[in-house]
Amino acid sequence: MDETTLSVDLATQELYVKARNDGSETLWDRKAALKNQCGFGEQGVCCRICTMGPCRVSPIPGKGVQKGICGATADVIASRHYARMVAGGSSAHSDHGRHIAHVLHMASRDGDYQIRDEKKLLNVAARWGVATEGKDIYQVAHDVAEAALNDFGKPFGSMVIPPSITKQRLKVWEDNDILPDAIDKEVVSIMHATHMGCTADAESMINLSMRTSLTDGWGGSYIGTEFSDIIFGTPMPREIEANMGVIEKNMVNIVLHGHEPSLSEMIVVAADDPELKALARGVGAEGINLVGICCTGNEVAMRHGIKIAGNFNQQELAIVTGAVEAMIVDVQCIFPSLANLAQCYHTKFITTSKLAKIKDAVHIEFDENNAYECAKGIIRKAVENYTNRKHEKVSIPTHKSTGMIGYSNQAIIGQLDRVVNSYTHKPGTFEPLAQCLVSGVLRGAAGVVGCNNPKVKGDHSHIEIIKKMLANDVIVVVTGCAAQAAAKAGLLSKDAVKYCGVGLQKVCELADIPPVLHMGSCVDNSRILELVGEVAKILGLDMSELPVVGAAPEWMSEKAVAIGTYVVSSGIDTFLGVVPPVTGSPEVTDILTNRLEDWVGAKFYFETDPAVAAEKMLARIEEKRAKIEALNVQRMNVTDYDDLAPAGF
Amino acid sequence: MDETTLSVDLATQELYVKARNDGSETLWDRKAALKNQCGFGEQGVCCRICTMGPCRVSPIPGKGVQKGICGATADVIASRHYARMVAGGSSAHSDHGRHIAHVLHMASRDGDYQIRDEKKLLNVAARWGVATEGKDIYQVAHDVAEAALNDFGKPFGSMVIPPSITKQRLKVWEDNDILPDAIDKEVVSIMHATHMGCTADAESMINLSMRTSLTDGWGGSYIGTEFSDIIFGTPMPREIEANMGVIEKNMVNIVLHGHEPSLSEMIVVAADDPELKALARGVGAEGINLVGICCTGNEVAMRHGIKIAGNFNQQELAIVTGAVEAMIVDVQCIFPSLANLAQCYHTKFITTSKLAKIKDAVHIEFDENNAYECAKGIIRKAVENYTNRKHEKVSIPTHKSTGMIGYSNQAIIGQLDRVVNSYTHKPGTFEPLAQCLVSGVLRGAAGVVGCNNPKVKGDHSHIEIIKKMLANDVIVVVTGCAAQAAAKAGLLSKDAVKYCGVGLQKVCELADIPPVLHMGSCVDNSRILELVGEVAKILGLDMSELPVVGAAPEWMSEKAVAIGTYVVSSGIDTFLGVVPPVTGSPEVTDILTNRLEDWVGAKFYFETDPAVAAEKMLARIEEKRAKIEALNVQRMNVTDYDDLAPAGF
Repeated sequence: MDETTLSVDLATQELYVKARNDGSETLWDRKAALKNQCGFGEQGVCCRICTMGPCRVSPIPGKGVQKGICGATADVIASRHYARMVAGGSSAHSDHGRHIAHVLHMASRDGDYQIRDEKKLLNVAARWGVATEGKDIYQVAHDVAEAALNDFGKPFGSMVIPPSITKQRLKVWEDNDILPDAIDKEVVSIMHATHMGCTADAESMINLSMRTSLTDGWGGSYIGTEFSDIIFGTPMPREIEANMGVIEKNMVNIVLHGHEPSLSEMIVVAADDPELKALARGVGAEGINLVGICCTGNEVAMRHGIKIAGNFNQQELAIVTGAVEAMIVDVQCIFPSLANLAQCYHTKFITTSKLAKIKDAVHIEFDENNAYECAKGIIRKAVENYTNRKHEKVSIPTHKSTGMIGYSNQAIIGQLDRVVNSYTHKPGTFEPLAQCLVSGVLRGAAGVVGCNNPKVKGDHSHIEIIKKMLANDVIVVVTGCAAQAAAKAGLLSKDAVKYCGVGLQKVCELADIPPVLHMGSCVDNSRILELVGEVAKILGLDMSELPVVGAAPEWMSEKAVAIGTYVVSSGIDTFLGVVPPVTGSPEVTDILTNRLEDWVGAKFYFETDPAVAAEKMLARIEEKRAKIEALNVQRMNVTDYDDLAPAGF
Repeated sequence: MDETTLSVDLATQELYVKARNDGSETLWDRKAALKNQCGFGEQGVCCRICTMGPCRVSPIPGKGVQKGICGATADVIASRHYARMVAGGSSAHSDHGRHIAHVLHMASRDGDYQIRDEKKLLNVAARWGVATEGKDIYQVAHDVAEAALNDFGKPFGSMVIPPSITKQRLKVWEDNDILPDAIDKEVVSIMHATHMGCTADAESMINLSMRTSLTDGWGGSYIGTEFSDIIFGTPMPREIEANMGVIEKNMVNIVLHGHEPSLSEMIVVAADDPELKALARGVGAEGINLVGICCTGNEVAMRHGIKIAGNFNQQELAIVTGAVEAMIVDVQCIFPSLANLAQCYHTKFITTSKLAKIKDAVHIEFDENNAYECAKGIIRKAVENYTNRKHEKVSIPTHKSTGMIGYSNQAIIGQLDRVVNSYTHKPGTFEPLAQCLVSGVLRGAAGVVGCNNPKVKGDHSHIEIIKKMLANDVIVVVTGCAAQAAAKAGLLSKDAVKYCGVGLQKVCELADIPPVLHMGSCVDNSRILELVGEVAKILGLDMSELPVVGAAPEWMSEKAVAIGTYVVSSGIDTFLGVVPPVTGSPEVTDILTNRLEDWVGAKFYFETDPAVAAEKMLARIEEKRAKIEALNVQRMNVTDYDDLAPAGF
């Protein structure tokens, strides 16, 4: 294969060639080996829910087999599969949130996990009605964790919805009967509803999917993000480096890959242990170099400045450098192939979660009750492995970029405080952002999120779409592997203002931000929900009325389906660059890309060409501006900003 | 198609021919239209968990594509799919249990739902530590329901296991780390573990599947059964009729189909309402005739003597008689095809559950808070539809059989009390059964359960296996559609002793039971667990040491996978007559059919030929007898029974 067709990322291209020369297999090789992928599966018209099947029906109405054995049509089959993807994705995120809630529950003043953001904890306590006054902060943490855990399984009542939701949106949910009950219960109910002989109506199935997805975005993920901030600190802007060039030739390189910060945070702390540092020097290394991949990479980069080695597509390539002593993983998005690949080099591939054991890996189960010692033990294995490095196999690309990350909403508000409008601005709010949107200085905002997928040239769609947004004065927020694509392409740098229209450029300069704001990992899409909800509340609008769009240009996982569904259910249009497996059903396709707008004021767009997707995103933003521009809100224009800059700015 | 190849049931054959003549489509027509079913899917080596795929790998080691894009092997792909089937099945059962728990929670002395089995309620209260003394029985019900509902979602601790489990079995579960936490949590966790990039180890995946399955058998299903008994009455033996001949030419025929008794019980009560009876006479009918299909059929037959129209394969055929005014359904195993089929006749096809809306059906959402009136409204629709009957389209087969049903464990103990051994027998226990097993009067016991599946000639495998068991002095317990196959074949009749060996014949005569005991619906497999556990406890053995086997000769649903998995995890070998989609993975096949025995003392057998399956079941029973026969328990032989019969017996 011509490596330039696989990814726009030069480090990726370089390491793909090295892998080929090393005789190491990568995802692109396996994709090529598959030849044709099953068209029934791709269009969502294959059903394996019961063993009367598998049943494959025709994706063309009126032509070929129209029904499975039970009578399920393409609409039924595709909608059920869609619902199960939402169930899988929501489960992954919510289980992540649950684990973090358990860590908060065990936090103690003298333990391995402590409270780093008391203010956020006290804020969150209010949501669940946890009394805080006169209470020790660790008791508050304990009580809040218990209240949140209760939201996963309480027998009665609705899930507690964070206060950032608009009241109009809550009404939309109530009117559509998609306000969820307990988080876990909704997953079980939709697994039930998708069982053989239950729901056989695409509208109902998508409705149930929306309900389930909300347990992810406004439930499990939201809890995951907030509680991580409470325990590990709310991210604040900092500069980092990204791409394979962050792997150091003369250091013990440890790659952290996966999702939940409870493990990776402890690795970061333990890597600073003098004993381990001495051990590293003892084996001839200059030190220990932690780097991150995928969402764990985002988590530890945001909070500790740990460098980002790469995103989803690059997980194998990190090992292919030949310079990685250990790759430590927990859950989600971890290739099973890594175990065998690691054996081709000297890398120790260490799994740590009971929910993600991988054959032929070294499994060291991470025990939160003994977190620090456990982390030390894992790092020790890595350090000791340094002497096994095969130097003739080492080749580290030099490519790396610098960029700013860590834009939690608190951080964004901190930056916005620099943009003071003495007439209306209340410090410590999103009001300047709201005003920029209303005035049209910013035409809108786009969330660009999600994975890599070899169906798309790596990072290409992310970058193409982001650049188009910037040029048209649309500010961009990013999470997950999309965020890392942006980092590698230099788009998280303040220098990226060069790609921006004049309005966005001005805003970036005033607020001292890059035009693309790194908001975190994939659970941190909850930060985007919070941001959009708060801005909408300031303007007295529903979230669906803002000139805001979401895009997942290179998505691949069920989590992305859950995210897309809760984002649309929250009133934000979502553009998918990989077509979900529903096109064999005219009805499901119509619901997702059309009818949903009547239900919840937003819908999906399927568009594989990033240039076309960007055009549509911009058009949709302009369409939604009509509403916002009719508002009686004080307008700002670009020149106004000269008066608005705070002293000394 | 030659109708005699489709089913051994004559009513089925007759109605299939009528359907063909009417131009109505049935499951067999749709199966034939599919031609070849996908071999990748059938062998479990197709993955659609992320949209890098679909990925199809070769089911043959070393030949063809061995890995999906992420590196997932056939072992990974098949084990994940298996786990998701367990998740789907467990969800269906547990959600059923949850609904019944909510009904118990709302039970009140003057409400639509009341307490019918106070003794069982008090028994169950002990399990959850609910205080009962001096408390109103409805308060007890309320508290027990709340405690049980808590087991679906509690944040800490293990699921409460019913006391019928042996202590040895609990240790096996602890040793294997499969003792589950909260019911819903386990489903979410396994959905997480099967997400892209999590578990990629077949052993771990099957281990997690076992853990999840236990939340079904010993959790949701167990709760479903017990609480149904408490609210609707514990079944006691009664005679019923079964097969299409129960549909009455001159009556308003209403078919109840689905699973949860909260709806169907209320329909049964409401059908007796003088107003509706008068309405029926008013439209020229002789009355209202309720009949059941699938598990709802079992539920209302057991408790009210409602006749059974047929099992899974016959759901369409009931409508094809042309004499069904309404088919009322709730959840699970309901063909989407029924909506259109009903329109070919005059039948009203009425869906009632939010979790099972079906396109083109009449949807009347059942509201437990207004249960009686809601049920009346539904029946009224049926009665009013009588005048629309197209008499030229009516043809009801005359085939029907009589049999005894309703063998709850309390009922079985009642019968066993007739078999008194004055030396050792304690009345009100399973001891006589235990002694019959030890002595060899009964060589063993077999549970024959599960669905129909057009991959198997309808009912054939059920009946063939049951008869082989009887002939070899193996007592049989049945549930679900297998139970209905037995009913139709006359095997639930006391006359069926003619098929039995001399030992079983004697036991049946003494206990005044048929040799095949109808224990209920598919959630009622929990009754079988209870029975096996209690017998094992009497003998001081683990459940895996008893000469007991399970068989699902014609299974098709994910529920059956969950059932099979919890049955094996409970120490009972399970024989599957339809091969599950795992054979493309040598490792998963080996785990399920071999290694599981080392883990939990039982395993699966895949055997599509019922004659061969029966031979293997008998062989396995004899193999397990070695252990039991070494026991120092007072032996009984056939002639002993003459002395044991109670006076006047």
